Amino acid sequence: MTIETTDLPSPGVTAAAGFRASGITAGLKASGRPDLALVVNDGPSQAAAAVFTTNRVVGAPVVWSRQAVSDGVVSAVVLNSGGANVCTGPEGFLDVHLTAETVGAALEVSAGDVVVCSTGLIGERLPIDKILDGIGVAVEALSSEGGPDAAVAIMTTDTVAKTAHLHVDGDRGAWTVGGMAKGAGMLAPGLATMLCVITTDAVIDAETAAAALRTAVSETFDRVDSDGCMSTSDTVTLMVSGASRAVPDPAGFTAALTQVCGELARALVADAEGATHDIAVTVMGAETQDAALAVARAVTRSNLFKAAMFGNDPNWGRVLAQVGTVPESVAAFDPDQLDVTINGVQVCKAGGAFRPRSEVDLAANREVHVLIDLHAGGEVATVWTNDLTHDYVHENSAYST
Amino acid sequence: MTIETTDLPSPGVTAAAGFRASGITAGLKASGRPDLALVVNDGPSQAAAAVFTTNRVVGAPVVWSRQAVSDGVVSAVVLNSGGANVCTGPEGFLDVHLTAETVGAALEVSAGDVVVCSTGLIGERLPIDKILDGIGVAVEALSSEGGPDAAVAIMTTDTVAKTAHLHVDGDRGAWTVGGMAKGAGMLAPGLATMLCVITTDAVIDAETAAAALRTAVSETFDRVDSDGCMSTSDTVTLMVSGASRAVPDPAGFTAALTQVCGELARALVADAEGATHDIAVTVMGAETQDAALAVARAVTRSNLFKAAMFGNDPNWGRVLAQVGTVPESVAAFDPDQLDVTINGVQVCKAGGAFRPRSEVDLAANREVHVLIDLHAGGEVATVWTNDLTHDYVHENSAYST
Repeated sequence: MTIETTDLPSPGVTAAAGFRASGITAGLKASGRPDLALVVNDGPSQAAAAVFTTNRVVGAPVVWSRQAVSDGVVSAVVLNSGGANVCTGPEGFLDVHLTAETVGAALEVSAGDVVVCSTGLIGERLPIDKILDGIGVAVEALSSEGGPDAAVAIMTTDTVAKTAHLHVDGDRGAWTVGGMAKGAGMLAPGLATMLCVITTDAVIDAETAAAALRTAVSETFDRVDSDGCMSTSDTVTLMVSGASRAVPDPAGFTAALTQVCGELARALVADAEGATHDIAVTVMGAETQDAALAVARAVTRSNLFKAAMFGNDPNWGRVLAQVGTVPESVAAFDPDQLDVTINGVQVCKAGGAFRPRSEVDLAANREVHVLIDLHAGGEVATVWTNDLTHDYVHENSAYST
Repeated sequence: MTIETTDLPSPGVTAAAGFRASGITAGLKASGRPDLALVVNDGPSQAAAAVFTTNRVVGAPVVWSRQAVSDGVVSAVVLNSGGANVCTGPEGFLDVHLTAETVGAALEVSAGDVVVCSTGLIGERLPIDKILDGIGVAVEALSSEGGPDAAVAIMTTDTVAKTAHLHVDGDRGAWTVGGMAKGAGMLAPGLATMLCVITTDAVIDAETAAAALRTAVSETFDRVDSDGCMSTSDTVTLMVSGASRAVPDPAGFTAALTQVCGELARALVADAEGATHDIAVTVMGAETQDAALAVARAVTRSNLFKAAMFGNDPNWGRVLAQVGTVPESVAAFDPDQLDVTINGVQVCKAGGAFRPRSEVDLAANREVHVLIDLHAGGEVATVWTNDLTHDYVHENSAYST
């Protein structure tokens, strides 16, 4: 089996055969930038799966799309930036319905097989006429090379479009997984404000696709945490065209899907609002995976730790202070046995100072690797986050004004 | 019964009879500012109680002081800024022991009745010789008017010293509760990096004092949350001199103690690092107190919400997004029934937009009052926090350098 990735930019959602996409300007953004994307599955399969935010407050598009994907069939995904359509009441739901109906009519598919995703400010109605007009333009613009355009049209505070794909040539034939994602602010373990569309031309049934997507998301998007805030709109949709006729084994498909999701998740962290460091917090020596994850998340959610990273200060005391907040019922460890290594320099051994902090040069690299050894078992887990910066505060204090 | 408070500055820990205090410069801070405080109980009672951080990683002073207070007797509290003495191994514990021995010898009390508190950077040994020399100076400086000096000596990034007191003249005689606190960064629900000493001349036994302190702390210090980070050093110590001979009923004493703790807690929020707004998040209509608290804490921990407040943006969508992260098992509510009022203007009704956000003027006041109605019961709780600002990031990225 050979696995091949090409240089950037990746075609994203149109890397796999059987898909067309477009990204156009519907006029939702005051900036005049592209704001409406469409991804269409031309089959022969229409199998699909999706994962949504676990927030109890969700946008009308999430309510609609959960229903749309429940039968394992999705023909198209329409996504807009410039407004989240959350907390917009029955009128907001009607807007989603109209959007799906319009896409369905234009593509001659059922509205019930159209997933709708929206991202932007909460609490304001979308200019629905602009969206409905824009859908006509987007359908006209559909192309088997439209993946990059679609990726641009879903950007909000993202500074770069995020696409990735993987081409697999194995015993059972050649197939491809590709995808796009947006989201730079509200990344969180429950998911993120994060819209993502993944496409594949492998032959996979809806049930297998759903299991593979759950696994891939839990190991990728669920392990990036920019600011601990969970969005009301997160949606990851996987569409299967089967156009390659190749039938991968489920484990191989899950691995490829996980790799594409992982690339997109890392791209989200790298583009997080105002970040100057991408930070990998790895917890080893844990009794269980859940314990490793809980400790890693406690550290990645600490404003004090993240502000120290912004200041290029290898302040391991703030790491230990966060580790110590995890209850004994969640993660076993002896506080006097904790080791911390930052970018290869062991600054803390057995709960106390070891190598001088001055030996750690954080300024030299964008990536920071924090390794915490709990000395309580053999499990390891990594969560990615980024530093807390002036620009994060600036972007998020001025977002809606 | 009359309750009387005088104008600021309050004498703090020396407001009550039977206490002396001092605050001096031992040379721990590079700035040359006062950094060592001593509070002594001259009796006749020596009853005491204390509450400590629930962090599993704790400083040597917390390990020592938990033991010291376990018999309900404390003769003195010695506190230093300029170093937390956390993650300093057996040597750090020896330093605490030496500190308590030196205070005990100078005051002719048992070292085991001396509480030790330290605040500052984690992971570095204290210059113990300077502390031991400083203790001699602090003992010489002890005065029944030394409360304000002591409050100054425990400041770290605090911009003002925090003192409060309450004088009660009731059926059972006149008595006073006074206190001081420091801490501006790591306030969190588990407690805060927060050192606090409370004194009273009421006649109260140690058991009653402990119960009153637990109640007072749970309703005050546990309900301020500056940045969600829990410290390794938090300590609130209550010392009882009984010098007034007045014997209040326990409920009246608890109420007075809660009022003094509440004033100090509010002063901590008001002086939180870089804050421009003090924010009260009140959740009403909750089925239980725990539900109200859980929802309020979810909101006060949101960086996105707090950055919006800094930008004077009444972004109620970020409030609802945080409310929605609280699991149904913790707080019952229907997302479509949520109301949000900000500074008296109802911006969200039944989960959707109501009055225009432009009607809320956040810039005009330092205090922001966010009221969330869950429409699920009759319980109410308030948690205080502050906004997330450029100055917070600046102070915490440059703290140890």
